[in-house]
Amino acid sequence: MPVGTSGAVKTIAPEELERTGTEIILGNTYHLYLRPGHKLIEQAGGLHRFMGWDKPILTDSGGFQVMSLHGLRKITREGVRFQSHLDGSYHFFTPEKVIEIQRSLGADIIMVFDECPSYPETKSYIAESMQLTLEWSKRCLDAHKDFNQQALFAIVQGGIYEDLREECARALISMDFPGYAIGGLAVGEEKEHMYRITEFLDDILPEEKPRYLMGVGTPLDLIINVMNGVDMFDCVMPTRNARKGTVFTSQGKIIIKAALYKENFRPLDPNCDCYTCKTFNRAYLRHLFNIDEMLAMRLASLHSIYYYNTFMTKIREAIDCNRLQTLLEETAKIYDDKKVDYSGNSIDN
Amino acid sequence: MPVGTSGAVKTIAPEELERTGTEIILGNTYHLYLRPGHKLIEQAGGLHRFMGWDKPILTDSGGFQVMSLHGLRKITREGVRFQSHLDGSYHFFTPEKVIEIQRSLGADIIMVFDECPSYPETKSYIAESMQLTLEWSKRCLDAHKDFNQQALFAIVQGGIYEDLREECARALISMDFPGYAIGGLAVGEEKEHMYRITEFLDDILPEEKPRYLMGVGTPLDLIINVMNGVDMFDCVMPTRNARKGTVFTSQGKIIIKAALYKENFRPLDPNCDCYTCKTFNRAYLRHLFNIDEMLAMRLASLHSIYYYNTFMTKIREAIDCNRLQTLLEETAKIYDDKKVDYSGNSIDN
Repeated sequence: MPVGTSGAVKTIAPEELERTGTEIILGNTYHLYLRPGHKLIEQAGGLHRFMGWDKPILTDSGGFQVMSLHGLRKITREGVRFQSHLDGSYHFFTPEKVIEIQRSLGADIIMVFDECPSYPETKSYIAESMQLTLEWSKRCLDAHKDFNQQALFAIVQGGIYEDLREECARALISMDFPGYAIGGLAVGEEKEHMYRITEFLDDILPEEKPRYLMGVGTPLDLIINVMNGVDMFDCVMPTRNARKGTVFTSQGKIIIKAALYKENFRPLDPNCDCYTCKTFNRAYLRHLFNIDEMLAMRLASLHSIYYYNTFMTKIREAIDCNRLQTLLEETAKIYDDKKVDYSGNSIDN
Repeated sequence: MPVGTSGAVKTIAPEELERTGTEIILGNTYHLYLRPGHKLIEQAGGLHRFMGWDKPILTDSGGFQVMSLHGLRKITREGVRFQSHLDGSYHFFTPEKVIEIQRSLGADIIMVFDECPSYPETKSYIAESMQLTLEWSKRCLDAHKDFNQQALFAIVQGGIYEDLREECARALISMDFPGYAIGGLAVGEEKEHMYRITEFLDDILPEEKPRYLMGVGTPLDLIINVMNGVDMFDCVMPTRNARKGTVFTSQGKIIIKAALYKENFRPLDPNCDCYTCKTFNRAYLRHLFNIDEMLAMRLASLHSIYYYNTFMTKIREAIDCNRLQTLLEETAKIYDDKKVDYSGNSIDN
């Protein structure tokens, strides 16, 4: 899911998104609540209509953004009191409030309000926090129970601890949600922890319901986590990196501003069928980045979204042909991401 | 002609430009010479191919930009020595050099290198400068004479003085160019001067050849100058204003960030068939501008280009139906532009 934080996938129009093969995008409850406000969006006929996107939308619950607010928020059993990162104004999110906001936004999939601990935290904090998430999940479910037009997904928390993850997952499964997200990963922990936790949860989460790993990731992350049973992902990485001039291609990452591409008249990715690759060459894109032309960010974003969508299609095909392992090896050859920095995951997500 | 200064109409992709009905765009010799360099563009197969635009392109000669450099340039009979506004590096433009650069760029219409005096200047300076432009025009013609794949247009100078304009026009006409531009207007003079000069030149310039008024203008300017015999225009106004959130509509100018539009769910222009107006409402566009989302600038630019192209179509239709005067009156009712500020015409053009 490309990320459309505040009602737009940055620089990209909905008609283009469709042409990149995007089937669902993510919107952000926290951001949309602050600007332009969920009531305004409701008045406009909901988020789909407001932003001109008639395919599915998932809205997150704001739990992650609230976590990112650090000094600006106070968590109680009732909910979270926080200050807007924009103007310092005070707000109070409860599970019920977050469901109400998401109902106004009208996304197809909405998320429970969770407490998303940052990393690292003590195990006892994570355990307590996970209990709070369970309590809040139940409250979200109750607030949502007479309304079946939006699928409410639960979020499994529990940090890097398998026993806590299992306890959380089993409790949520007993509440019978239509889908389960795995939260609290890609928040700064070692990759091995992420892979270990998704693998661990693979045997616990119900097979017939979608599983969504939040805030992930690189192409290699996608395939490894799909092997661990994950179905859905969201990440700002493709679009954010693209706006800074780094794109994912079938030949690895390309930093398009590099002097190397000054007189390179080949497409960004010769194996790609996106508008950017079919129309422009590297020298042109490099030029646009050099003159700070917004079209550069747009064309790079377009390519990266297309690349990600196409990559997910390849994964699905590989599943059908029983060659996931081969695709994993090919991908690992292209991307060495031992050192991926997830610190970019922040309030702006 | 929408302005694509450095090889891109800001924020807009060529496929979109086509859908706005754009038939020709303008590129900028001075800017493209500095970045990415005309030789690079030649290597890439010319400007059309470099920027992915296969319809006509006109490149200006850099005369206007050199004028804007003020303290950074020295004019001699041979040419202009100037410093780059980007890095202070020294360069020398002669008529021959400018033809060479434009040949590398490969536009369909290219312009002579002129001396474009700023406003106000003394009549004696304008007279001298106009003689220099005539000399340079002859040199451009000579440099271009064995090359007929690009139409070389002359530029009539002479400031706000009819006698100088006439002298310049007649001398250029005797050199037999395929088209004639009117330069040195929209540089800060009163509108009345502009209208007077184009009206004056209407009887002098050959009827069967295209006339191009450089750097103009508002919708009202377009129609008034068409009535004075002008065929072609270029201006950054629609796109630059759009990026700042002001768009032209059939109901006048709209400043989209205005609080007035906060809960306004109508299209920017209910009478417009552009993608922006067909897909989004004012509240959404206002929201995008408020969060500084680049998509806002893009959607607004798209609309304004479409509006300008459609307006020119209306003018052509009005000519056919003999109702130009009515269209002028209708337009004057919508736009009061006694106070249009052309000071935005600068080095960035």
